Amino acid sequence: MPIVGRKIGVVNIGLKSFAENLEKQGIDVIHVNWRPPAGGDLERIRLLSQIEGEEVDQANQVAIKKILESQPILVSIKPAKDAIPKMHEKMFLHAGPPVTWSRMCGPMRGAMIGAALFEGLADTPEQAEKMLRSGDIIFEPCHAHSAVGPMAGVISPRMPVFVVKNRKAGNFAYSNINEGLGKVLRFGAYSSDVIKKLRWMKDNLALALGLAIERASEIDLRSITARALNMGDECHNRNAAATALFTRSLMPYLLETDLHVDIMKEVARFLSENDHFFLNLSMACCKATMDTAIGLKDSSIVVAMARNGTEFGLRVAGTGEEWFTAPAPLVDGLYFPGFKTEDANPDLGDSSITETAGIGGFAMAAAPAITKFVGGSPEDAITYTREMYEITIARNKNYAIPSLNFKGTPTGIDVRKVIETRITPVINTGIAHKEPGIGQVGAGLTRAPIECFEKALKKLAENHR
Amino acid sequence: MPIVGRKIGVVNIGLKSFAENLEKQGIDVIHVNWRPPAGGDLERIRLLSQIEGEEVDQANQVAIKKILESQPILVSIKPAKDAIPKMHEKMFLHAGPPVTWSRMCGPMRGAMIGAALFEGLADTPEQAEKMLRSGDIIFEPCHAHSAVGPMAGVISPRMPVFVVKNRKAGNFAYSNINEGLGKVLRFGAYSSDVIKKLRWMKDNLALALGLAIERASEIDLRSITARALNMGDECHNRNAAATALFTRSLMPYLLETDLHVDIMKEVARFLSENDHFFLNLSMACCKATMDTAIGLKDSSIVVAMARNGTEFGLRVAGTGEEWFTAPAPLVDGLYFPGFKTEDANPDLGDSSITETAGIGGFAMAAAPAITKFVGGSPEDAITYTREMYEITIARNKNYAIPSLNFKGTPTGIDVRKVIETRITPVINTGIAHKEPGIGQVGAGLTRAPIECFEKALKKLAENHR
Repeated sequence: MPIVGRKIGVVNIGLKSFAENLEKQGIDVIHVNWRPPAGGDLERIRLLSQIEGEEVDQANQVAIKKILESQPILVSIKPAKDAIPKMHEKMFLHAGPPVTWSRMCGPMRGAMIGAALFEGLADTPEQAEKMLRSGDIIFEPCHAHSAVGPMAGVISPRMPVFVVKNRKAGNFAYSNINEGLGKVLRFGAYSSDVIKKLRWMKDNLALALGLAIERASEIDLRSITARALNMGDECHNRNAAATALFTRSLMPYLLETDLHVDIMKEVARFLSENDHFFLNLSMACCKATMDTAIGLKDSSIVVAMARNGTEFGLRVAGTGEEWFTAPAPLVDGLYFPGFKTEDANPDLGDSSITETAGIGGFAMAAAPAITKFVGGSPEDAITYTREMYEITIARNKNYAIPSLNFKGTPTGIDVRKVIETRITPVINTGIAHKEPGIGQVGAGLTRAPIECFEKALKKLAENHR
Repeated sequence: MPIVGRKIGVVNIGLKSFAENLEKQGIDVIHVNWRPPAGGDLERIRLLSQIEGEEVDQANQVAIKKILESQPILVSIKPAKDAIPKMHEKMFLHAGPPVTWSRMCGPMRGAMIGAALFEGLADTPEQAEKMLRSGDIIFEPCHAHSAVGPMAGVISPRMPVFVVKNRKAGNFAYSNINEGLGKVLRFGAYSSDVIKKLRWMKDNLALALGLAIERASEIDLRSITARALNMGDECHNRNAAATALFTRSLMPYLLETDLHVDIMKEVARFLSENDHFFLNLSMACCKATMDTAIGLKDSSIVVAMARNGTEFGLRVAGTGEEWFTAPAPLVDGLYFPGFKTEDANPDLGDSSITETAGIGGFAMAAAPAITKFVGGSPEDAITYTREMYEITIARNKNYAIPSLNFKGTPTGIDVRKVIETRITPVINTGIAHKEPGIGQVGAGLTRAPIECFEKALKKLAENHR
């Protein structure tokens, strides 16, 4: 059939301007939104093609199965030194990848000073700083000990931690207890009222919650998370529903303890005043979930994203304990009155374990009201979640998002998909002041740095050779 | 300028097929989606035009101001006979417009029998029925006493009621306490365990909650509702968030009472097991709000929609205490396993006071997960809310819907708008079995009957002459 003289249509691939010009001339055009993979970089494409095979796909399927089948339950509260196997008297844990005192950011140093005062290892902040600088205390990442902590994430031996068990896989995860807002250790504050509250948490709160949890026998964190995702939480920066559900279900058990009513009263008051209380439980729930995939040869699924305020670190199932790092990015956010961008510390905390597990920023479509806190519109929230389906390999049907017609949360970040699409994981997060002792100055959104994924890709390809 | 020879466009009003035909011929058409008001009925249009003036608009503005400025707070719990001014020993209140024993539906008769047993006025259901039939007890609508009750809505003299005060206008509203799910009085059950639970509620629950509420001094119901609307509730058939928020905030005060810990334990357990607990508080909050507009001459704003299971009744601000009724419609819904449409009682209960106040079915866009309970999709939920803006005169900025970019709930149903558009208020609701003693068989959606609005229109026009 002759082409000349017939009406023809065009399919345009690549640059959109070609399609637009044809359209102006009245020609029917379908534009295909295609871009070369990996930004067209030949070296990256070569590495990608090395791990495009069935072996990696299969390893990822094993990984995602373990992740989706996880059943984290809260079993107890114990002092870190008793709960965490390799924890000892001279070890302080912190958020993110490994970091030395000299490279540590302000809020993390502040939290370390606070921990030293809390432990009774120093009488003044100056003494504490001297002691910490001297190398007396070993600093290790929470993640190296199946633990997670928000912001500075400092856990010292006597601090009480939640013990979360993955009923399916049998592994354990740990997190410290949320202190509430205002001047708190996790944002680098170490004044005497901060230490006083930590001591009350150790002596009274942990005791009471521990006894109540024991009586409740098993608190299903996945179920609370699932219900909270139907109630406007994304379980990272919005935990209002999850906290209320947790509190409500724990109260009858608290009343079954033989504790003095004054302690119960204080505990009930504490729980009723902190909408973020569930955050640390959400994090431990996600940690217990993602750890099931660590060390699965060949798998390109991300198992941890964490920040120490200096560096952002990534761990991948197939590369085990290794960290792939890049400078911690800044957070684009809304600031509390009186603060501005210049006050902000770069991205900080283990709380991005929630995004790693497919909630938090990945589930923002479930939490339109969070945009009042981190910025953007409810429409943006939906856009973020939709975008995250591009870089994940599964939808978690346990975690349904009502506004997306109960579609499961985007779960299982594949390093290959991130490299291919250049779409990086979105993380919503609190912003700490860069100086110790000040606290939270805002909240907002950031992205995991692509460099971490490029380093991981290289290592995965190397290992796979 | 000549028309012939120039390119012309068409604006089509009315039948869409005209526009479609022109479109097929390649002519540019804009279709205006217009229909004759009031279905084109000349009598209705005549009545409408009688109340289209500024006087009605102004009266409605006064009404909506009172509604939007209302600040209902929970102040106490008291026995109905002590709380409700005209309540007396021989009076039982019920849901919906007035109804006699002979016309009463099954579940309401069941609830009346249960109330008689609870009050100790009879020893057996047979005795109770005989007594109730004899005329010994006066039946009056809850709404005639500033009260509301879900489903059968039966309130007898010794039943404890929530006392809600509108801090702004000074008026009071009352509601009974939610019993939970299963076999309960409000669905017409009256077995001994139902009565036993009611007695426990009177002797222990009401006592404990009453003391806690007293200590809390003022519990702001509007604030809880606002937060719950950001957490997936619409505060009629979904109260999971509101109940959790209420429980969490009340717990510290409960612990401040000097009650025995065993009572506290029972109360905490009861509150932790009933996701609908807040419903009755939501209803009293709405009742205290809408009553502020009752009797405002000329106003065409609906102040109550209520059903007694036989009839649906409407009250309008400008016509005061008068009821405009029509047969109660059936509910289109999802049935619990083992039940079907034939088992259903027609629409029942005062809970549609929530829709009257702009939440419930009107705020379904805030509660996408409710569609799992009442049927439809999250998209339908948004459609219902959008539709209700067509028949209301305001958006309640106190009640923001995150998924609609924080638009306020559609509030203030204007009888004129309902008649003009033929769009009737959507109500989501539980479904009771038509026989007494069985209970809830499902949940779903229904519409207020247009006949009620037509009767109200007629009366408004008459009054306005």
